[in-house]
Amino acid sequence: MNELFSDEYFMRKALDEAHAAFERDEIPVGAIVVSNNKIIAKGHNLTETLTDVTAHAEMQSITAAANYLGGKYLIDCTLYVTLEPCVMCAGALYWSQISKIVVGARDEKRGFLQAGVKLHPKTEITWGIMENECSELIKVFFRQKR
Amino acid sequence: MNELFSDEYFMRKALDEAHAAFERDEIPVGAIVVSNNKIIAKGHNLTETLTDVTAHAEMQSITAAANYLGGKYLIDCTLYVTLEPCVMCAGALYWSQISKIVVGARDEKRGFLQAGVKLHPKTEITWGIMENECSELIKVFFRQKR
Repeated sequence: MNELFSDEYFMRKALDEAHAAFERDEIPVGAIVVSNNKIIAKGHNLTETLTDVTAHAEMQSITAAANYLGGKYLIDCTLYVTLEPCVMCAGALYWSQISKIVVGARDEKRGFLQAGVKLHPKTEITWGIMENECSELIKVFFRQKR
Repeated sequence: MNELFSDEYFMRKALDEAHAAFERDEIPVGAIVVSNNKIIAKGHNLTETLTDVTAHAEMQSITAAANYLGGKYLIDCTLYVTLEPCVMCAGALYWSQISKIVVGARDEKRGFLQAGVKLHPKTEITWGIMENECSELIKVFFRQKR
Protein backbone atom coordinates (compact mmCIF):
# COMPACT_ATOMS: atom_id res chain seq x y z
CA MET A 1 0.00 0.00 0.00
CA ASN A 2 1.17 3.50 -0.81
CA GLU A 3 2.57 5.14 2.32
CA LEU A 4 0.25 8.10 1.82
CA PHE A 5 -2.84 5.92 2.04
CA SER A 6 -1.80 3.81 5.01
CA ASP A 7 -4.16 2.86 7.83
CA GLU A 8 -2.29 5.40 9.98
CA TYR A 9 -2.98 8.13 7.43
CA PHE A 10 -6.73 7.53 7.55
CA MET A 11 -6.84 6.91 11.30
CA ARG A 12 -5.27 10.35 11.72
CA LYS A 13 -8.25 11.78 9.81
CA ALA A 14 -10.62 9.92 12.14
CA LEU A 15 -8.62 11.29 15.07
CA ASP A 16 -9.11 14.81 13.68
CA GLU A 17 -12.86 14.11 13.98
CA ALA A 18 -12.37 12.91 17.55
CA HIS A 19 -10.59 16.19 18.34
CA ALA A 20 -13.56 18.08 16.89
CA ALA A 21 -15.81 16.17 19.31
CA PHE A 22 -13.44 17.02 22.18
CA GLU A 23 -13.72 20.71 21.36
CA ARG A 24 -17.51 20.46 21.59
CA ASP A 25 -17.19 18.81 25.01
CA GLU A 26 -18.35 15.49 23.58
CA ILE A 27 -16.72 12.13 24.38
CA PRO A 28 -13.96 12.29 21.74
CA VAL A 29 -14.67 9.58 19.20
CA GLY A 30 -14.31 10.14 15.48
CA ALA A 31 -14.89 8.08 12.36
CA ILE A 32 -14.47 8.29 8.61
CA VAL A 33 -15.49 6.05 5.73
CA VAL A 34 -13.04 5.49 2.90
CA SER A 35 -13.79 4.10 -0.55
CA ASN A 36 -11.01 3.68 -3.13
CA ASN A 37 -8.67 5.79 -0.98
CA LYS A 38 -11.19 8.63 -0.93
CA ILE A 39 -12.87 9.86 2.25
CA ILE A 40 -16.60 9.73 1.49
CA ALA A 41 -17.95 10.41 5.00
CA LYS A 42 -16.84 11.89 8.31
CA GLY A 43 -18.48 12.00 11.70
CA HIS A 44 -17.82 12.62 15.36
CA ASN A 45 -19.78 11.93 18.48
CA LEU A 46 -22.60 14.46 18.90
CA THR A 47 -24.79 12.79 21.54
CA GLU A 48 -24.77 15.83 23.85
CA THR A 49 -25.05 18.47 21.14
CA LEU A 50 -28.01 16.72 19.52
CA THR A 51 -29.35 15.21 22.80
CA ASP A 52 -29.54 11.94 20.92
CA VAL A 53 -27.98 8.68 22.09
CA THR A 54 -27.89 7.42 18.51
CA ALA A 55 -25.57 10.24 17.33
CA HIS A 56 -22.35 8.23 17.56
CA ALA A 57 -19.52 8.94 15.10
CA GLU A 58 -20.04 5.61 13.34
CA MET A 59 -23.81 6.03 12.89
CA GLN A 60 -23.38 9.41 11.27
CA SER A 61 -20.58 8.11 9.06
CA ILE A 62 -22.64 5.11 7.92
CA THR A 63 -25.61 7.33 7.04
CA ALA A 64 -23.41 9.88 5.27
CA ALA A 65 -21.50 7.24 3.30
CA ALA A 66 -24.72 5.55 2.12
CA ASN A 67 -26.04 8.95 1.12
CA TYR A 68 -22.87 9.62 -0.88
CA LEU A 69 -22.98 6.21 -2.57
CA GLY A 70 -26.72 6.30 -3.22
CA GLY A 71 -27.09 2.80 -1.81
CA LYS A 72 -27.40 1.36 1.67
CA TYR A 73 -24.62 -1.25 1.45
CA LEU A 74 -21.07 -0.03 2.07
CA ILE A 75 -19.39 -2.34 -0.41
CA ASP A 76 -15.62 -1.81 -0.83
CA CYS A 77 -15.71 0.69 2.02
CA THR A 78 -13.57 0.88 5.14
CA LEU A 79 -14.65 2.54 8.39
CA TYR A 80 -11.83 4.03 10.46
CA VAL A 81 -12.96 4.66 14.01
CA THR A 82 -10.90 5.84 16.97
CA LEU A 83 -12.75 3.66 19.53
CA GLU A 84 -14.13 0.13 19.28
CA PRO A 85 -17.79 0.35 18.19
CA CYS A 86 -20.52 -0.26 20.77
CA VAL A 87 -23.33 -2.79 20.36
CA MET A 88 -25.54 -0.27 18.53
CA CYS A 89 -22.84 0.74 16.05
CA ALA A 90 -21.70 -2.86 15.49
CA GLY A 91 -25.33 -3.72 14.74
CA ALA A 92 -25.53 -0.88 12.23
CA LEU A 93 -22.23 -1.95 10.65
CA TYR A 94 -23.63 -5.47 10.33
CA TRP A 95 -26.61 -4.19 8.36
CA SER A 96 -24.31 -2.06 6.16
CA GLN A 97 -22.25 -5.13 5.13
CA ILE A 98 -19.19 -2.86 5.21
CA SER A 99 -16.05 -4.50 3.84
CA LYS A 100 -13.59 -3.48 6.53
CA ILE A 101 -13.40 -1.81 9.94
CA VAL A 102 -10.17 -0.36 11.34
CA VAL A 103 -10.24 0.37 15.07
CA GLY A 104 -7.97 2.60 17.16
CA ALA A 105 -8.50 1.95 20.87
CA ARG A 106 -10.32 -0.98 22.49
CA ASP A 107 -13.41 -0.36 24.64
CA GLU A 108 -13.29 -3.20 27.15
CA LYS A 109 -16.45 -2.07 28.91
CA ARG A 110 -18.88 -0.93 26.20
CA GLY A 111 -17.38 -2.40 23.03
CA PHE A 112 -19.19 -4.95 20.89
CA LEU A 113 -16.62 -7.68 21.52
CA GLN A 114 -17.32 -8.07 25.24
CA ALA A 115 -21.05 -8.16 24.40
CA GLY A 116 -20.47 -11.09 22.05
CA VAL A 117 -21.89 -9.24 19.04
CA LYS A 118 -20.79 -10.61 15.67
CA LEU A 119 -19.86 -8.60 12.59
CA HIS A 120 -21.19 -9.46 9.14
CA PRO A 121 -19.35 -12.38 7.46
CA LYS A 122 -18.31 -9.95 4.69
CA THR A 123 -16.61 -7.61 7.18
CA GLU A 124 -12.95 -7.88 8.15
CA ILE A 125 -11.46 -5.98 11.06
CA THR A 126 -8.06 -4.55 11.99
CA TRP A 127 -7.32 -3.53 15.56
CA GLY A 128 -4.93 -1.17 17.30
CA ILE A 129 -4.04 1.43 14.66
CA MET A 130 -2.77 4.51 16.55
CA GLU A 131 -4.21 2.91 19.68
CA ASN A 132 -2.27 5.09 22.12
CA GLU A 133 -3.26 8.42 20.56
CA CYS A 134 -6.90 7.35 20.31
CA SER A 135 -7.17 6.12 23.90
CA GLU A 136 -5.09 8.99 25.33
CA LEU A 137 -7.55 11.58 23.96
CA ILE A 138 -10.44 9.82 25.72
CA LYS A 139 -8.45 9.54 28.97
CA VAL A 140 -7.65 13.26 28.88
CA PHE A 141 -11.34 14.02 28.30
CA PHE A 142 -12.51 12.03 31.32
CA ARG A 143 -9.61 13.27 33.49
CA GLN A 144 -10.70 16.90 32.97
CA LYS A 145 -14.31 15.92 33.80
CA ARG A 146 -13.42 14.72 37.31
CA MET B 1 -54.81 0.28 33.87
CA ASN B 2 -57.57 2.14 32.07
CA GLU B 3 -58.85 0.01 29.19
CA LEU B 4 -58.29 2.90 26.77
CA PHE B 5 -54.59 3.02 27.53
CA SER B 6 -53.88 -0.70 27.42
CA ASP B 7 -50.79 -2.22 25.80
CA GLU B 8 -53.08 -3.36 22.97
CA TYR B 9 -54.25 0.19 22.41
CA PHE B 10 -50.71 1.49 21.96
CA MET B 11 -49.52 -1.53 20.01
CA ARG B 12 -52.31 -0.84 17.54
CA LYS B 13 -50.80 2.64 17.04
CA ALA B 14 -47.40 1.05 16.40
CA LEU B 15 -49.10 -1.32 13.97
CA ASP B 16 -50.56 1.69 12.14
CA GLU B 17 -46.96 2.80 11.64
CA ALA B 18 -46.03 -0.67 10.37
CA HIS B 19 -48.88 -0.40 7.84
CA ALA B 20 -47.48 2.95 6.71
CA ALA B 21 -44.13 1.21 6.07
CA PHE B 22 -45.93 -1.55 4.14
CA GLU B 23 -47.52 1.03 1.87
CA ARG B 24 -44.08 2.43 1.08
CA ASP B 25 -42.86 -1.07 0.19
CA GLU B 26 -40.67 -1.14 3.31
CA ILE B 27 -40.39 -4.15 5.65
CA PRO B 28 -43.45 -3.36 7.80
CA VAL B 29 -42.18 -2.53 11.27
CA GLY B 30 -43.58 0.34 13.32
CA ALA B 31 -42.82 1.87 16.70
CA ILE B 32 -44.12 4.57 19.00
CA VAL B 33 -42.86 6.04 22.27
CA VAL B 34 -45.37 6.76 25.02
CA SER B 35 -44.85 8.95 28.08
CA ASN B 36 -47.64 9.38 30.64
CA ASN B 37 -50.13 7.81 28.24
CA LYS B 38 -49.20 10.32 25.55
CA ILE B 39 -47.61 9.34 22.24
CA ILE B 40 -44.50 11.51 21.99
CA ALA B 41 -42.86 9.85 18.96
CA LYS B 42 -43.75 7.66 16.01
CA GLY B 43 -41.62 5.93 13.42
CA HIS B 44 -41.66 3.26 10.77
CA ASN B 45 -38.98 1.47 8.87
CA LEU B 46 -37.56 3.69 6.10
CA THR B 47 -34.35 1.89 5.17
CA GLU B 48 -35.21 1.69 1.46
CA THR B 49 -36.75 5.14 1.17
CA LEU B 50 -33.76 6.79 2.85
CA THR B 51 -31.20 4.22 1.57
CA ASP B 52 -29.97 4.05 5.15
CA VAL B 53 -29.62 0.83 7.14
CA THR B 54 -29.92 2.81 10.38
CA ALA B 55 -33.44 4.07 9.57
CA HIS B 56 -35.28 1.45 11.62
CA ALA B 57 -38.60 2.35 13.27
CA GLU B 58 -37.05 2.22 16.75
CA MET B 59 -34.08 4.45 15.88
CA GLN B 60 -36.30 7.16 14.52
CA SER B 61 -38.63 6.89 17.51
CA ILE B 62 -35.76 7.14 20.00
CA THR B 63 -34.38 10.23 18.25
CA ALA B 64 -37.84 11.85 17.97
CA ALA B 65 -38.73 11.12 21.60
CA ALA B 66 -35.45 12.58 22.89
CA ASN B 67 -36.04 15.62 20.72
CA TYR B 68 -39.54 16.02 22.20
CA LEU B 69 -38.28 15.60 25.76
CA GLY B 70 -35.22 17.80 25.27
CA GLY B 71 -33.02 15.16 26.89
CA LYS B 72 -31.36 12.01 25.68
CA TYR B 73 -32.63 9.62 28.36
CA LEU B 74 -36.11 8.18 27.84
CA ILE B 75 -37.09 8.10 31.51
CA ASP B 76 -40.69 6.99 32.22
CA CYS B 77 -41.09 6.18 28.55
CA THR B 78 -42.34 3.01 26.89
CA LEU B 79 -41.44 1.93 23.36
CA TYR B 80 -44.09 -0.13 21.56
CA VAL B 81 -42.61 -1.93 18.60
CA THR B 82 -44.26 -4.45 16.29
CA LEU B 83 -41.12 -6.60 15.88
CA GLU B 84 -38.41 -7.59 18.34
CA PRO B 85 -35.58 -5.02 18.05
CA CYS B 86 -32.36 -6.02 16.26
CA VAL B 87 -28.88 -5.71 17.78
CA MET B 88 -28.49 -2.11 16.59
CA CYS B 89 -31.84 -0.99 18.01
CA ALA B 90 -31.34 -2.88 21.27
CA GLY B 91 -27.97 -1.14 21.60
CA ALA B 92 -29.62 2.24 21.05
CA LEU B 93 -32.36 1.39 23.57
CA TYR B 94 -29.64 0.50 26.07
CA TRP B 95 -28.06 3.93 25.71
CA SER B 96 -31.49 5.60 26.06
CA GLN B 97 -32.14 3.89 29.43
CA ILE B 98 -35.79 3.61 28.36
CA SER B 99 -38.08 2.38 31.15
CA LYS B 100 -40.06 -0.19 29.22
CA ILE B 101 -40.22 -1.96 25.87
CA VAL B 102 -43.36 -3.72 24.62
CA VAL B 103 -42.81 -6.09 21.70
CA GLY B 104 -45.32 -7.54 19.22
CA ALA B 105 -43.76 -10.37 17.22
CA ARG B 106 -40.52 -12.23 17.95
CA ASP B 107 -37.62 -12.13 15.45
CA GLU B 108 -35.91 -15.46 15.99
CA LYS B 109 -33.29 -14.77 13.34
CA ARG B 110 -32.31 -11.12 13.67
CA GLY B 111 -33.63 -10.18 17.11
CA PHE B 112 -31.38 -9.06 19.95
CA LEU B 113 -32.26 -12.05 22.15
CA GLN B 114 -30.66 -14.67 19.90
CA ALA B 115 -27.56 -12.44 19.69
CA GLY B 116 -27.27 -12.43 23.48
CA VAL B 117 -27.53 -8.63 23.71
CA LYS B 118 -28.61 -7.29 27.11
CA LEU B 119 -31.01 -4.44 27.78
CA HIS B 120 -30.24 -1.71 30.32
CA PRO B 121 -30.89 -2.77 33.94
CA LYS B 122 -33.49 0.03 34.15
CA THR B 123 -35.46 -1.39 31.20
CA GLU B 124 -38.30 -3.88 31.60
CA ILE B 125 -39.79 -5.76 28.67
CA THR B 126 -43.17 -7.26 27.78
CA TRP B 127 -43.51 -9.73 24.92
CA GLY B 128 -46.24 -10.89 22.57
CA ILE B 129 -48.75 -8.03 22.54
CA MET B 130 -50.81 -8.46 19.33
CA GLU B 131 -48.17 -10.91 18.22
CA ASN B 132 -50.28 -12.51 15.47
CA GLU B 133 -51.27 -9.24 13.79
CA CYS B 134 -47.69 -7.96 13.94
CA SER B 135 -46.11 -11.10 12.51
CA GLU B 136 -48.87 -11.64 9.94
CA LEU B 137 -48.21 -8.24 8.36
CA ILE B 138 -44.54 -9.12 7.89
CA LYS B 139 -45.41 -12.55 6.47
CA VAL B 140 -47.80 -10.97 3.94
CA PHE B 141 -45.08 -8.51 2.94
CA PHE B 142 -42.50 -11.22 2.23
CA ARG B 143 -45.08 -13.49 0.57
CA GLN B 144 -45.87 -10.80 -2.03
CA LYS B 145 -42.13 -10.28 -2.61
CA ARG B 146 -41.60 -13.88 -3.76
